[in-house]
Amino acid sequence: MAAPATTPKPPYYAVIFTSVRSDGDNGYDATAERMLELASQQPGFLGFETARQEIGISVSYWATADAIKHWKANAEHLAAQQRGKDAWYKCYRVRVCRVEREYGQ
Amino acid sequence: MAAPATTPKPPYYAVIFTSVRSDGDNGYDATAERMLELASQQPGFLGFETARQEIGISVSYWATADAIKHWKANAEHLAAQQRGKDAWYKCYRVRVCRVEREYGQ
Repeated sequence: MAAPATTPKPPYYAVIFTSVRSDGDNGYDATAERMLELASQQPGFLGFETARQEIGISVSYWATADAIKHWKANAEHLAAQQRGKDAWYKCYRVRVCRVEREYGQ
Repeated sequence: MAAPATTPKPPYYAVIFTSVRSDGDNGYDATAERMLELASQQPGFLGFETARQEIGISVSYWATADAIKHWKANAEHLAAQQRGKDAWYKCYRVRVCRVEREYGQ
């Protein structure tokens, strides 16, 4: 991923997922890859950005708040969320946002 | 920074700054450090998270949309924004968001 996500004219939605990983992979990398593949197939998915140093920040973009709810309730995603709580993250925050303005170059 | 930002109960605001750096430092690191120091002194500043791999994602959190406007118009910050356009970033996107929901552990 070598560029910011290309997103439509606001308003649209963003989910900011901030996390600190536990030690060890424990299946994380494969699941992260699969979750991105699965998310990108969901209705309303607009794009994804991710980076990790001391903390990880992943932002997914969505057309509507309902699209986010549907993705959160996806069965395979629910299993990954539980595994995240149990094994992958020391701590995390999820912030659901309405994007009101966007600019850049 | 070893933890996600601690933010109040929503609603509040987030600025997601996504960028791809140009080659070389060109004064970037010192200015980035100074901008965080300066931002954290502004009225309404709530917190900051950052990580960079292929792309950089920095998220600042603010109490109100007005606090973001004031920070954007800060003279020293305006100079840094111009230097960013001219020298530091191949490309960037700024997304101003209203945080509607937050959870985590």
